[in-house]
Amino acid sequence: MSTGPKLEERTLQVDLGDRSYPIYIGSGILDRPEYYRRHIPARQVMVVTNETVAPLYLDPVLQALQGFQTASVVLPDGEQHKTLSVWNRIFDELLNRRFNRQCCLVALGGGVVGDMAGFAAACYQRGVHLIQVPTTLLAQVDSSVGGKTGVNHADGKNMIGAFYQPRCVIIDIRTLDTLDDRQLAAGMAEVIKYGLINDPVFFEWLESSMERLVGRDRATLSEAIEWSCRDKVALVAADEREAGSRALLNLGHTFGHAIETGLGYGEWLHGEAVAAGMCMAADLSRRLGWIGEADLTRVRALIERAGLPLDPPATLGRERFLELMSVDKKVLEDQIRLVLLKGIGNSLVTQDFDQAALINTLDEYGREQNR
Amino acid sequence: MSTGPKLEERTLQVDLGDRSYPIYIGSGILDRPEYYRRHIPARQVMVVTNETVAPLYLDPVLQALQGFQTASVVLPDGEQHKTLSVWNRIFDELLNRRFNRQCCLVALGGGVVGDMAGFAAACYQRGVHLIQVPTTLLAQVDSSVGGKTGVNHADGKNMIGAFYQPRCVIIDIRTLDTLDDRQLAAGMAEVIKYGLINDPVFFEWLESSMERLVGRDRATLSEAIEWSCRDKVALVAADEREAGSRALLNLGHTFGHAIETGLGYGEWLHGEAVAAGMCMAADLSRRLGWIGEADLTRVRALIERAGLPLDPPATLGRERFLELMSVDKKVLEDQIRLVLLKGIGNSLVTQDFDQAALINTLDEYGREQNR
Repeated sequence: MSTGPKLEERTLQVDLGDRSYPIYIGSGILDRPEYYRRHIPARQVMVVTNETVAPLYLDPVLQALQGFQTASVVLPDGEQHKTLSVWNRIFDELLNRRFNRQCCLVALGGGVVGDMAGFAAACYQRGVHLIQVPTTLLAQVDSSVGGKTGVNHADGKNMIGAFYQPRCVIIDIRTLDTLDDRQLAAGMAEVIKYGLINDPVFFEWLESSMERLVGRDRATLSEAIEWSCRDKVALVAADEREAGSRALLNLGHTFGHAIETGLGYGEWLHGEAVAAGMCMAADLSRRLGWIGEADLTRVRALIERAGLPLDPPATLGRERFLELMSVDKKVLEDQIRLVLLKGIGNSLVTQDFDQAALINTLDEYGREQNR
Repeated sequence: MSTGPKLEERTLQVDLGDRSYPIYIGSGILDRPEYYRRHIPARQVMVVTNETVAPLYLDPVLQALQGFQTASVVLPDGEQHKTLSVWNRIFDELLNRRFNRQCCLVALGGGVVGDMAGFAAACYQRGVHLIQVPTTLLAQVDSSVGGKTGVNHADGKNMIGAFYQPRCVIIDIRTLDTLDDRQLAAGMAEVIKYGLINDPVFFEWLESSMERLVGRDRATLSEAIEWSCRDKVALVAADEREAGSRALLNLGHTFGHAIETGLGYGEWLHGEAVAAGMCMAADLSRRLGWIGEADLTRVRALIERAGLPLDPPATLGRERFLELMSVDKKVLEDQIRLVLLKGIGNSLVTQDFDQAALINTLDEYGREQNR
């Protein structure tokens, strides 16, 4: 695939004391042996991937791992497979291959693969090495960075998991060439999120760049990924275990998780649910008088230009929505906590808001006929 | 149950920086509210126990937790139930009760309950609070202390797990009154282990105290528990994640895990398998010329007086034993690592030994007719 170093290669450092690690961003780098060799203090390497990604990238990655004792496990693709029983297949294979506790797992795929392989690395023999090689925009800008791993429970998304940091993240933007438009858009939801949370300059840049991003201009995509990772790294470094400010990253996620769980995992993509969730958070913020109509319009317009849904599926309804939201991890002491907006690029985590306004948002967004 | 403070109450401190915690040892303390209140920064408390322990101690513990929002989950009893699917029942209940990520789990039971509840606390919403209330001798002197948690995989014991420290450990020695002789003996295997590893004075004390211990003299049992915890705490504090010296605690365990996995979990108690495993480790050490015949005899004599098996089941055989041992976590780079003895109270972790001697030990101990 690649030949020699690329000019656009960048390295970001995630600063977490003795758990610090680099994020490499470049084009055509996932088959470059040096990235792996530098970070694998092991002989045994298990590549965890899925049936969509394996035909595209498994061989080049295994090629790059020559000299290691390698094996791979190919999981089914989709959020509906992020379960304990599919997760257990990784252990089946590790034990079948007699992998020891000095081994390394490589997560090659999107968010689901990264979450499951990462959680398996956290738990296999109480912890082995991990490298993240995200191949979707969503995984590159969000799930591969920061150490959140886990699987879903039938009653709640990501309810079983661990904080577990990789040895490095290898982001090869060439993998976006094989990503379909729907998946690209889903990743864009998380990109937009960073602007909304605390980076108004990035939000403006996205407003002026969305056509190039949707058109897959490689330099623009690369810049968006780097900017997103930088914003996420800052929040993670300040609060690794989400005791405080890291929770801002959940903007749109309490609504979004309710959509994903309520519809059944895999029906909507995670990013699509987050997009509608951000619209709902913005709507609620407007009802509370925290942002104006103009800001709400800007949020919805950018999300729409990214090709994302602005509204949740009409089938859920207020009661079910509330029930699902109250299971979410952000619920503290019976009061629903949400990330809401005080402006574009100005967000806060709060449970101190008029719950009647939340009901109004749910009623409005839960209607059969959307606005 | 209890009234007022007991004279014999002791507190040990496990020193692990910001994960430090106390171990309380006393008689009739598991129903004392202050021990819980001091360490539960939560409103929701889930007691995880099993069907043997629940009728004996669940009510008093729930009584002590008055004022909290409590719930309980009762698991089946036995090592054969330490699986991912039984583990998942804890999450079913936590989600069913809408427990949030500020909740606390209380592990009330033996080693299996402690391992599963501890691992559930490590993973529920990526980590909630945990209190260990061990009710078997084995759990009191070993598994509740030090933060190892996990479940078994069909192909290997404790293969899926986490290091996760509790907020405190409450050891009520009165619970030993309801423990059957076989379970008491199983715990004694781990007690003897501490003497063998690095505490020759303790080993001698055990040689002079074994009749009182087997006779359930409460003061002697209390002293043995405290001594064991002290020895374990020192090893854990020096090496929490088993990068080095903590591995000494695995004396007898590589052989023992092979016995447990090979027979099917639950057939032998963990402590019984460890007892036979320690005899095998001592036998191998003698073959290597590292200890003399007299030391081997002392080891076997003390284990026998504790009412424990000296030999593995004859059904396994050398080949199967080797296969099972090579899956164990202590296997590094294809070479089996073992904890072996250079004397009573003088052990080392090594893979630098004549593997032919290991074969001889397995042949000798794998025979149909035991010595």
